[in-house]
Amino acid sequence: MTDLVGFGEATLRLRAGRDRRLGDAEQFAAGVGGPERNAVVTASGLGADAVWLSRLPDSPLGRRVVADLRGHGVRTGVTWGDGDARLATRFVEAGPEPRGRTTVDDRSGAAFERVHAPNLPAGVVQEAARFHVAGPTVARSERAAATTESLFEVASEAGTTASFDLRYRDADWDEATARAACEALFPYVDVLFVSPEAAQAVFGEDGDPIEIAHALRTDNGFETVVLGHGDGDALAVHDDEVHEVDAVPGETVDEAGVHDAFVGAFHATRLAGSDSDGEGADGRPTDVGTALARGAAAAALARTLAGDAVDVSPEAIDRILD
Amino acid sequence: MTDLVGFGEATLRLRAGRDRRLGDAEQFAAGVGGPERNAVVTASGLGADAVWLSRLPDSPLGRRVVADLRGHGVRTGVTWGDGDARLATRFVEAGPEPRGRTTVDDRSGAAFERVHAPNLPAGVVQEAARFHVAGPTVARSERAAATTESLFEVASEAGTTASFDLRYRDADWDEATARAACEALFPYVDVLFVSPEAAQAVFGEDGDPIEIAHALRTDNGFETVVLGHGDGDALAVHDDEVHEVDAVPGETVDEAGVHDAFVGAFHATRLAGSDSDGEGADGRPTDVGTALARGAAAAALARTLAGDAVDVSPEAIDRILD
Amino acid sequence: MTDLVGFGEATLRLRAGRDRRLGDAEQFAAGVGGPERNAVVTASGLGADAVWLSRLPDSPLGRRVVADLRGHGVRTGVTWGDGDARLATRFVEAGPEPRGRTTVDDRSGAAFERVHAPNLPAGVVQEAARFHVAGPTVARSERAAATTESLFEVASEAGTTASFDLRYRDADWDEATARAACEALFPYVDVLFVSPEAAQAVFGEDGDPIEIAHALRTDNGFETVVLGHGDGDALAVHDDEVHEVDAVPGETVDEAGVHDAFVGAFHATRLAGSDSDGEGADGRPTDVGTALARGAAAAALARTLAGDAVDVSPEAIDRILD
Amino acid sequence: MTDLVGFGEATLRLRAGRDRRLGDAEQFAAGVGGPERNAVVTASGLGADAVWLSRLPDSPLGRRVVADLRGHGVRTGVTWGDGDARLATRFVEAGPEPRGRTTVDDRSGAAFERVHAPNLPAGVVQEAARFHVAGPTVARSERAAATTESLFEVASEAGTTASFDLRYRDADWDEATARAACEALFPYVDVLFVSPEAAQAVFGEDGDPIEIAHALRTDNGFETVVLGHGDGDALAVHDDEVHEVDAVPGETVDEAGVHDAFVGAFHATRLAGSDSDGEGADGRPTDVGTALARGAAAAALARTLAGDAVDVSPEAIDRILD
Amino acid sequence: MTDLVGFGEATLRLRAGRDRRLGDAEQFAAGVGGPERNAVVTASGLGADAVWLSRLPDSPLGRRVVADLRGHGVRTGVTWGDGDARLATRFVEAGPEPRGRTTVDDRSGAAFERVHAPNLPAGVVQEAARFHVAGPTVARSERAAATTESLFEVASEAGTTASFDLRYRDADWDEATARAACEALFPYVDVLFVSPEAAQAVFGEDGDPIEIAHALRTDNGFETVVLGHGDGDALAVHDDEVHEVDAVPGETVDEAGVHDAFVGAFHATRLAGSDSDGEGADGRPTDVGTALARGAAAAALARTLAGDAVDVSPEAIDRILD
Amino acid sequence: MTDLVGFGEATLRLRAGRDRRLGDAEQFAAGVGGPERNAVVTASGLGADAVWLSRLPDSPLGRRVVADLRGHGVRTGVTWGDGDARLATRFVEAGPEPRGRTTVDDRSGAAFERVHAPNLPAGVVQEAARFHVAGPTVARSERAAATTESLFEVASEAGTTASFDLRYRDADWDEATARAACEALFPYVDVLFVSPEAAQAVFGEDGDPIEIAHALRTDNGFETVVLGHGDGDALAVHDDEVHEVDAVPGETVDEAGVHDAFVGAFHATRLAGSDSDGEGADGRPTDVGTALARGAAAAALARTLAGDAVDVSPEAIDRILD
Repeated sequence: MTDLVGFGEATLRLRAGRDRRLGDAEQFAAGVGGPERNAVVTASGLGADAVWLSRLPDSPLGRRVVADLRGHGVRTGVTWGDGDARLATRFVEAGPEPRGRTTVDDRSGAAFERVHAPNLPAGVVQEAARFHVAGPTVARSERAAATTESLFEVASEAGTTASFDLRYRDADWDEATARAACEALFPYVDVLFVSPEAAQAVFGEDGDPIEIAHALRTDNGFETVVLGHGDGDALAVHDDEVHEVDAVPGETVDEAGVHDAFVGAFHATRLAGSDSDGEGADGRPTDVGTALARGAAAAALARTLAGDAVDVSPEAIDRILD
Repeated sequence: MTDLVGFGEATLRLRAGRDRRLGDAEQFAAGVGGPERNAVVTASGLGADAVWLSRLPDSPLGRRVVADLRGHGVRTGVTWGDGDARLATRFVEAGPEPRGRTTVDDRSGAAFERVHAPNLPAGVVQEAARFHVAGPTVARSERAAATTESLFEVASEAGTTASFDLRYRDADWDEATARAACEALFPYVDVLFVSPEAAQAVFGEDGDPIEIAHALRTDNGFETVVLGHGDGDALAVHDDEVHEVDAVPGETVDEAGVHDAFVGAFHATRLAGSDSDGEGADGRPTDVGTALARGAAAAALARTLAGDAVDVSPEAIDRILD
Repeated sequence: MTDLVGFGEATLRLRAGRDRRLGDAEQFAAGVGGPERNAVVTASGLGADAVWLSRLPDSPLGRRVVADLRGHGVRTGVTWGDGDARLATRFVEAGPEPRGRTTVDDRSGAAFERVHAPNLPAGVVQEAARFHVAGPTVARSERAAATTESLFEVASEAGTTASFDLRYRDADWDEATARAACEALFPYVDVLFVSPEAAQAVFGEDGDPIEIAHALRTDNGFETVVLGHGDGDALAVHDDEVHEVDAVPGETVDEAGVHDAFVGAFHATRLAGSDSDGEGADGRPTDVGTALARGAAAAALARTLAGDAVDVSPEAIDRILD
Repeated sequence: MTDLVGFGEATLRLRAGRDRRLGDAEQFAAGVGGPERNAVVTASGLGADAVWLSRLPDSPLGRRVVADLRGHGVRTGVTWGDGDARLATRFVEAGPEPRGRTTVDDRSGAAFERVHAPNLPAGVVQEAARFHVAGPTVARSERAAATTESLFEVASEAGTTASFDLRYRDADWDEATARAACEALFPYVDVLFVSPEAAQAVFGEDGDPIEIAHALRTDNGFETVVLGHGDGDALAVHDDEVHEVDAVPGETVDEAGVHDAFVGAFHATRLAGSDSDGEGADGRPTDVGTALARGAAAAALARTLAGDAVDVSPEAIDRILD
Repeated sequence: MTDLVGFGEATLRLRAGRDRRLGDAEQFAAGVGGPERNAVVTASGLGADAVWLSRLPDSPLGRRVVADLRGHGVRTGVTWGDGDARLATRFVEAGPEPRGRTTVDDRSGAAFERVHAPNLPAGVVQEAARFHVAGPTVARSERAAATTESLFEVASEAGTTASFDLRYRDADWDEATARAACEALFPYVDVLFVSPEAAQAVFGEDGDPIEIAHALRTDNGFETVVLGHGDGDALAVHDDEVHEVDAVPGETVDEAGVHDAFVGAFHATRLAGSDSDGEGADGRPTDVGTALARGAAAAALARTLAGDAVDVSPEAIDRILD
Repeated sequence: MTDLVGFGEATLRLRAGRDRRLGDAEQFAAGVGGPERNAVVTASGLGADAVWLSRLPDSPLGRRVVADLRGHGVRTGVTWGDGDARLATRFVEAGPEPRGRTTVDDRSGAAFERVHAPNLPAGVVQEAARFHVAGPTVARSERAAATTESLFEVASEAGTTASFDLRYRDADWDEATARAACEALFPYVDVLFVSPEAAQAVFGEDGDPIEIAHALRTDNGFETVVLGHGDGDALAVHDDEVHEVDAVPGETVDEAGVHDAFVGAFHATRLAGSDSDGEGADGRPTDVGTALARGAAAAALARTLAGDAVDVSPEAIDRILD
């Protein structure tokens, strides 16, 4: 049985060196990223049997994405675009403060925009323990939104735990569109990841993080709400209990993928025990508190690595938590 | 007075190292290219006062293109696309034989496709000695074709020498479209650059290179026809005389921009003498034979440089011709 | 059903830049190599379902080897050494002539030396179409030789085609030891890869390549004998017929893994048609002549890539053969 | 009309990597620097029409300097030295503390030392809004000092605002020489940039920064005195008013050119409004307070870039000030 | 007369870039390290006439070690292993926190393990002012321990000051073995370097650093005990007087070799005055307090350099101490 | 006793990458070169006890030169210039043909120009077996010429074999000056290295290489004349016998230092047998023919290495000659 399935877009990230800008970099470091790609890669590195579903251009760059996933032990269910389709690219300049981060998102016309549910292997979702999609995926196109809804429906019917990572950036969608998407998807969702900013923008929820999480959970009947707040701190409300974790202190080399590593490690921890009573196959606990802690450690490790490098090892996480 | 104006698209070239592939390169070397950008850069390096006209996205990447031109002493007349417009990109793998060259052209949706003649400073073309466009530019979109025709018309009325570099690749356009474009533009053209392959594909001209060049010139009333053939050899028919030059032997580091360097140096040489009787301002001859020779030397130099590096120096050309 | 299983050792290759030496290189490029690792990686890239069996140290370097194989789509059946075990390393200087190639092989004490057949998943060999081992593997230790013999026996009993790549270097073993190993293994072997040098050193076979291949085949009852000779040319004797192929001309970036790419592509081609009458699942022929041709193309491609990069694509091979 | 003219020397900076020393660096990163070159480059990037005057050797390195300026949109008025003249070079080691910064200044015999006012296009200064020279330029040779005085005289007569950046390092000149130079130049100066250290060394001014600035302004009849103090904080006395700005916090990648970026941005801001009543052509205010603030932001940005990279964008400055 | 002789092993360090891991680094930076190699290199850079004794494999890597030492002005007395002997290697990943440092020590079977006292030039120790060995050297093999004891005996008889740097890591030896080694060697030792952790692990000494140092000195009759404690602070007890020094603040690029640089600078300072009454040949004091201070400065400098770069200059140390 | 002493200048070579130019290289590879430095480095690597005499600036760059020599096992006798003195630098662009090689020599004002014989340790020359100077050294300044003459005189009186490498480039000196220098030095010279071009320019010797060598030897009473001709071929006339060697074929990475490696290996071979009758201490012959052959092999090896890397190993030479 598959442990975790992610559905979403892959982006080729082209990163300028730290002391150069998009306008004068002579070299760009290349890597594959994407919220769900990152989450399943982290989960795979922690022992989960993971699958990633998407639509890609039939080009050396599209095939590079599949090789990237495969290289992290993740199986892929991909439909291929025709000759004209593109791979989304993002150019990244990540300078020290106060220069900070500048990105050029070059996604329009990407093969993923025309993803179509009937062409994807929905059976993989049916047989999985968990299924995960992040907000920006839904915002990519009408087809992307429809496919997400369709796969969430499959998950719901099959008893697959459905996870949704609600993020909100003006660049992705406006508040009304985000709200409508949430309304369509929330009935299927079991686990919600959300930030205070998204809760505020989409639902007008404001104030104490714990209360926000409680309110979202109660209002929507979620099994679990995980709310990242502050600078890496997180809390979860699950079974009416609140679990909290502080960010693991450390140095930031690259912020890319850090949140996704958190999500992936959270799921991998929860999964490890899905066939037992509170203890994972490897003897590690699988409760929500442990999942938060392992998520925070995974995020801290990913933060020390350049690009969307989120394939942290269980040994490295154990070392931090000891 | 401006010497040479080019109109066309700029492309961000992202090049994998020689022993890596698009699928596994960790770094891509970045540079700006484009047939007319290359030609005016070469001409500028050889002393011509040059201008480049185009449409670009209003982004750090679009501004990088302007900085690149400016950095080679070329003034720019650019209209800016809105937020969604892209910059065309090309991913290049250039391996040794038998692996050879693989490119991914990612141009659809680029800002240039919506270039519009009325927004460009046509006065620059009126006041220039020479105006140059290459075939692929016309093939980019209907607007690009219409703008080219409009600017050729301006050149023609103003007495500006109009230069067209007819290339033919299946990937750019089909034969019928290319033929139609030529029919629309040829009445304005004074100098034609053409390859035997293009002559064959577009006009069915076949056989001896000299005869092809003569035929094209006679049929269309061109002032000059320059025909590159073999592997870097070239000939020109001008005033019913034939001039020939052999390729300058040397090593190939990167083929990109080599032909454009030839075109740029040809124009720069011809221009140097536009205000004198057969001798340029710098004492160098300006006849067609010399222009061919300097074109071939510029091409050989560009061939030793990575990417679209075509800014060869007059001293380096002199050294080869001595 | 698994298509191809390889058994052997992995080596961490540390390569100095082309204009530096082992004594003054400031950086070493790192990669994983090994004759059977290379062969199964090539085969996997060409569509074969491949598995690699070995023994590795339980360290970040040992895990790197598994990640490398997995990253090329190859499943692994690995037993882990204890804390003290090492990963074999090879330091490589590959300078231009007359400086040439210098290597430091640092293999003694490697985990692989203590490989033990009962700990390996022999069932994988039973269920595979083909099983492959190269000569140097046998020469590594008594345990490695015994394990090879044991796995060949499993293959033989299960009807799995057994492939042996006999190489001979003084540094690996002496002639007597090599001869004894061959005597023990040949009864199980179906396909033999051999060089004229090895045939001479081990069997005293000398003279015309075709006659050598015939003699080896007749004497030992092999199904197929593939003899690489000259500088990349190869011939095969199969069903009493001789097939020949010339080396594909091209440039040499790195000789490492080139022969293994040949072997991997040969097997992948033969496999493609194992369930059909002379034509592979993808419509490509599967006869020995085609396997030789695709092997030679794969070798030529691998030769243009640094290190043990042997994961050539079927499209690239098709392009060469067209 | 030209906005800003700078006169001074260019230096080829050769910088060792951060974890290497001058004695063991295998590579040096190369770039062009110089106080006035830096100031006009920053000003040009912020929209000023800028010119740089100097004397250079007629060599590929001298021509590299012109290309550098041109590449940043700055026109050059350069006289060329003969064959023997050198380009000043500076070798830089910039290690973390406590290793810190070590430089080898290799300037003696440089072409600039023999700069001669009559050979420079003084008309450019006459037609400019502002003219700027930094102290070390004057200290380079008697000819450099005489040329500076001559150009200041031209500026004064033409009503061009004359700016002088008084710095003091023992390595450049002794206190008496500096004082004499100031006495000669101050009658022409309108805007003085000065540090507390220089004020102390050259004029014996000590104590409260505001009082120092007031005293210098009153004593010499300057229009504006800008005094950088503390670690990036600055104040200006202008029209008897005091304006102050705090350093923009951030990370230091390289200190080179940071002060010059401040000067360049100060001038560019003041210039933007030179043809209007208190508001620049781009709608930004042009008062001294705004000039200080934009100077501090430009300095903070330059600090995040390696070498003399001071070509910060107006957008980046706006982002900091928002 | 030789100033300082070190005896010990050399290791080839292969270091991944800061944002990569042992499992995915494409390049490893190579360098030679080893506690005594480092100490004599630092001492040599500070003017000491130094020699290093060891056993190495007769390979390009072994010869690289000799070239490294020679390149730092250190003479070598080396016996060569036969063909099979290895050079110890250490793979290093040094990531930011919380990822931190991971090493793979690959030392077993190294040529040094079979070092044999009679083959080393003991006369060099007899004629030296000081002789130094570090704890891990003794822990490498029985032969290494026996050779150390033998050379300490030579030193003792010749009146050469014998220095021992007692370190303790579980990975090197267990407490009992370390204690036995100390018991064997301490009778010969004049100067002991020790950490509170080692004092605790080996002798059960706990508590106040000064008391620990006093106790060790009194119990064993050492001339000097130097105890590094805290994070770079150190104290020495010598002639019943206590000398203390604080760590020099600064940035850490690489921790490797930092302690050895301290030891080397301590000895070099003490040595400088060995032929005078309290003042070195270069006019610098040679007392224990100065040796501590120069040791701390050398350590702080080494900390800013990548790898085992410990060849700090006397000028750099003077600059810190001023 | 010292085997070989060289006297001459050291230059810091700053080399652009192969596909970049002096005008656009972002990085320069740094290294130390110089004809005599190169010759003694090669000789030292082949076992000679070598010393290098020179004058250097007292700066991190000057000290880098000493470290470079020391790092190749060569002792140095250096006098130090004062603060203002420079180190000669050479900027090198070495592109493929037809771009070819461009250098900027920046030597004027270098510390070496003021070298003064009385400050150098002439005793080293007295006690040496061989003493070597190259032509460009003499051309550097009057002091350099006078010092050379003085040291040759010392060598002559002490019976030290004096070697002179006469090269001729217009850039170094004119023919009359070169001829005068030769007239002054030749009475002391025992071994002359010369090219046909130099023989022609300085002595008007033309025609057959063997005859040129004979004539020079007879006219000047040299012990040996070594004449490099063609493209790496060489001949020597010694004891009225002619010895010849062909260039060793191979690839050229960098031409720098290749001839010096020939000279160094020639001397090292001749030296090896200086205390025996025709056979060197290591059993290798020491005759002129062998010296030529080993010189040619050393040159071929140096040709495969970037920069002035001339420290070839005896093993590598043996491998070529076998």
